[in-house]
Amino acid sequence: MTQPVKFYFDFLNQSSRSLYILLEASKIPFEAIPISMVKGEHLTGEFRDKVNRFRKLPAITDQGYQLSESVAIFRHLAREKLVPEHWYPHRYLGRSRIDEFLAWQQSNMAVACTDYFQQKWLVPYLQKTRPSDSAVNVASKQLEHTLNDFEELFLNSRKFMLGDNISYADLSAICEIDQPKCIGFNAFKNRNKLARWYDMVREELGPYYKNVHKEFESKLKLNNGQQQLGEAHALKQ
Amino acid sequence: MTQPVKFYFDFLNQSSRSLYILLEASKIPFEAIPISMVKGEHLTGEFRDKVNRFRKLPAITDQGYQLSESVAIFRHLAREKLVPEHWYPHRYLGRSRIDEFLAWQQSNMAVACTDYFQQKWLVPYLQKTRPSDSAVNVASKQLEHTLNDFEELFLNSRKFMLGDNISYADLSAICEIDQPKCIGFNAFKNRNKLARWYDMVREELGPYYKNVHKEFESKLKLNNGQQQLGEAHALKQ
Repeated sequence: MTQPVKFYFDFLNQSSRSLYILLEASKIPFEAIPISMVKGEHLTGEFRDKVNRFRKLPAITDQGYQLSESVAIFRHLAREKLVPEHWYPHRYLGRSRIDEFLAWQQSNMAVACTDYFQQKWLVPYLQKTRPSDSAVNVASKQLEHTLNDFEELFLNSRKFMLGDNISYADLSAICEIDQPKCIGFNAFKNRNKLARWYDMVREELGPYYKNVHKEFESKLKLNNGQQQLGEAHALKQ
Repeated sequence: MTQPVKFYFDFLNQSSRSLYILLEASKIPFEAIPISMVKGEHLTGEFRDKVNRFRKLPAITDQGYQLSESVAIFRHLAREKLVPEHWYPHRYLGRSRIDEFLAWQQSNMAVACTDYFQQKWLVPYLQKTRPSDSAVNVASKQLEHTLNDFEELFLNSRKFMLGDNISYADLSAICEIDQPKCIGFNAFKNRNKLARWYDMVREELGPYYKNVHKEFESKLKLNNGQQQLGEAHALKQ
C-alpha cells in the first residue's frame, strides 16, 4: 500500500505554508509533522539524523525518499502525485514562466522578506531583545525595492501571474509577502496592482489559505505573548 | 521552419558556461550571441528592451518566447528540446535530487562563489583598484564553508553526484567552482573527494568543457591585461 507523504513543516516559515496549502488543495494524502524552528527542533535528534541532512524546513519523505528545498519538493509533488494542472501548467509554456519566477523569488523576494522577518521578529524573539532600528531600516529598504520589482516584473492587468488561473507562482508569492505583512509591514502603500492581486489570490485560495494563515498569525501572537511575559518577568527580577 | 534558440551569454558568468556546454553537448541548434557584462551591454539597448526585462545573463529567446534565470532555462531546454536523459534523469527520482541540488546551489554555493569573484576580480576590475583584503578575507571564509558543505552533502564514493552518469548537477557545480578557482583560489586543499570528483567531471565533459573553459580563462587574462595597462598608464600620468 502506498504510504502518505510525510511533510515536516513550521507555519512560521513561508514555504511550509505554501506547500501545505498545495498538498491540501490538491487532496494529496499526507501526514503533517510540525517541527518547531524557534525551539530548534530542526537542528537535533531524529529530524537531523533521519529526515533531513540539510537541517532545513520544509522537508518530505516519500516512500522513504528524503527531499529538501521547497522548490524541489514542489516539482517532486507535481511529477509524482496528482497535482491539478493549473498549479504548474504546460500550456503556453506556463511551466517555464513559473520556473523563472521561482528562481527570481529565491534570490530576490525571499531574501528580502526573510531578512525583514528575522530583523523585526525572529532575532528579537530568540535573543529576548527589541529589534535594532538600523537593521530593520536596512531590511525595509531592500523589501520596498523587491516589492517594486515584483509588481513591475510579474504583475499585469490579468487576475493572476499567468492569466485567469491561479498557479504555484501566486501561492508561493502570497506566502512570501505575508512574512513581513503579518508583522506590520505595509506592503500595499503606493502599490495598487499588488493590493488587487493579493486580494484575488487570497479569495481564490479560500479556506485552504485562511486556515493556514490563522495558524501562522496565532503562532506569531503566542510567541510574542511569551516574549512579553519573559520581558516583564526579567524586569521584575 | 523551427528557428534555433537564441542564447545570450558571457563566458565570465558561470551559468552562461554551463548552459552553453549543455547546448553543445546535446547538439541543440542555437545561435550564440555574446553580451559583454563588463561593458554593461546587458543593461542597455536592445538586450534590455527586447530580450530580457531582468537585465541578467544568461537569457534565451525560443520562437520569440523570452526566458531568464539559468535554472528555468535549463528546465525549458529539458522539456522543449531533445536533451539526453542522463542530464536530468527520471530514474530513481534523479530529477528530484537534481532539483534539490540546484536550489541549494542557488542559495549557497552560487552566493559564495559569486561574492569571492566580485571582491577579488570584478570590483577591482571595474573600479580600477586593488582588491580589498578584508572583503576578500570575508568572502574566502564563506567559500571554504560552502565547499565543505558541498563535499559533505553532495559528494560520495560514486563517480558523479547521481552515480555512474554525469548530470546537469555536476556540470552546474563545476562551472560554479571554476569561478573562484580560475582566479587563484585553492578549492582542493584538504578536499580530496572534491578534487577527485572535479577531475572526473572535467574528463567526462571533454572538449565541450575544455573549449569554453579556455575562452573563460582568456577573458580573465585579457581583462586583467587591459587593467594592468590602465594602471600603468595612470601611474605615469
